[in-house]
Amino acid sequence: MPLTTVNLAQKLSQFDDAWNPRVVGELGDQLVKLVKLRGEFVWHHHDVEDELFLVLRVRMRMGLRDPDERVVAVGEGEFLIVPHGVEHCPAADTEEVALLLLEPATTLNTGNLRNDRTRDRLERI
Amino acid sequence: MPLTTVNLAQKLSQFDDAWNPRVVGELGDQLVKLVKLRGEFVWHHHDVEDELFLVLRVRMRMGLRDPDERVVAVGEGEFLIVPHGVEHCPAADTEEVALLLLEPATTLNTGNLRNDRTRDRLERI
Repeated sequence: MPLTTVNLAQKLSQFDDAWNPRVVGELGDQLVKLVKLRGEFVWHHHDVEDELFLVLRVRMRMGLRDPDERVVAVGEGEFLIVPHGVEHCPAADTEEVALLLLEPATTLNTGNLRNDRTRDRLERI
Repeated sequence: MPLTTVNLAQKLSQFDDAWNPRVVGELGDQLVKLVKLRGEFVWHHHDVEDELFLVLRVRMRMGLRDPDERVVAVGEGEFLIVPHGVEHCPAADTEEVALLLLEPATTLNTGNLRNDRTRDRLERI
């Protein structure tokens, strides 16, 4: 990718579909992604990849099993790192959520699952 | 680090000194850092590490030699990834700048240089 400034709001305005991450940057083996959330995702984990969720808009609800099930609220300007192996389930309760994700390029959005929400090839915008 | 939400504004309020990054998160071999900028830093590069600069407050001026010298303005809500090998010099022109940095744990703030601005051991907050 060229050495240019990336404006998060401008990139977010380029897509509308939920649960379909876009790639907006790359450093080392890591990808920077943007994703919109509406409703609840699926419980999953990543065997080897740690994931960073930075909330750009509103408020994410993250279900965690580490090991007991609990819920963490992540507000605008807050991030949560979910280590590999930890079962999690992101959700947007009322308003749409916009996230910046940071994770290795090998990360599959549904982790250990493969279903209709799996996105194998992510668009770069 | 524990699996808890990190509030960027709250962490930024915990320190005031410029050019002294704090570690606020860790994922894989990467560290998430916060840093405040006042004035100009030093020209340097990193031999192997790519660096992400996300502007949380106001506006950063980044000098780049890639290969010709130029200046990029990075505003609030924008990020810039500087690939390894690219000579760069971050600066805050008027107001203090607050950044989120993402880079491998091996990254030295002054890159190929060692001088009075080098910070070898970063505080975790």
